[in-house]
Amino acid sequence: MDHRKVEGLKSFSQEKLNKVALFSSERSMTDLYCVLPGQSQKPHVHEASDKVFYVISGKGTFTIGGEEAVLSPGELTIARPGENHALANRGSEPLLVLVFMAPRP
Amino acid sequence: MDHRKVEGLKSFSQEKLNKVALFSSERSMTDLYCVLPGQSQKPHVHEASDKVFYVISGKGTFTIGGEEAVLSPGELTIARPGENHALANRGSEPLLVLVFMAPRP
Repeated sequence: MDHRKVEGLKSFSQEKLNKVALFSSERSMTDLYCVLPGQSQKPHVHEASDKVFYVISGKGTFTIGGEEAVLSPGELTIARPGENHALANRGSEPLLVLVFMAPRP
Repeated sequence: MDHRKVEGLKSFSQEKLNKVALFSSERSMTDLYCVLPGQSQKPHVHEASDKVFYVISGKGTFTIGGEEAVLSPGELTIARPGENHALANRGSEPLLVLVFMAPRP
């Protein structure tokens, strides 16, 4: 069985937001975003994919379609095709976000 | 922004495993499975979809492609197209699983 543990896979980079690939196919991509305080992913758009974000730990500031919200552990949001989206860790603790995309861009 | 909180949405049924719909499109479906001790989802197959499971709380016994594993919070697995899969709560605590399917079956 293809089985992963976030605790063993999380890996932060001092240089930039680190994406850890968990599962991937042409249908979907599951990544773990490891985001230190001050790091971010700049605004961008996927023209044909859903992108779902689930906050595992820390706090993430998400900007989707021009709206901003701070999400805590246990909270989710989605960027739909064509929606501009960005995320930033403006908190003081490391941020872990589970990210599902479908289809893989 | 389309924003959800697991804590406010989780809902258990005494009768059977309860699926709470979070996001849905033809590209993907995100659900919260709320599983009381003794409840389960029977073995089945999706012919064309990836199905990713992330355990939020509790312990889940997953059987995928004939292999069985007990997953704890922070652990993930995937059932790929054509793979027979099932899950059960054989523990003593409620089980919450985030389930992401792509494409929507």
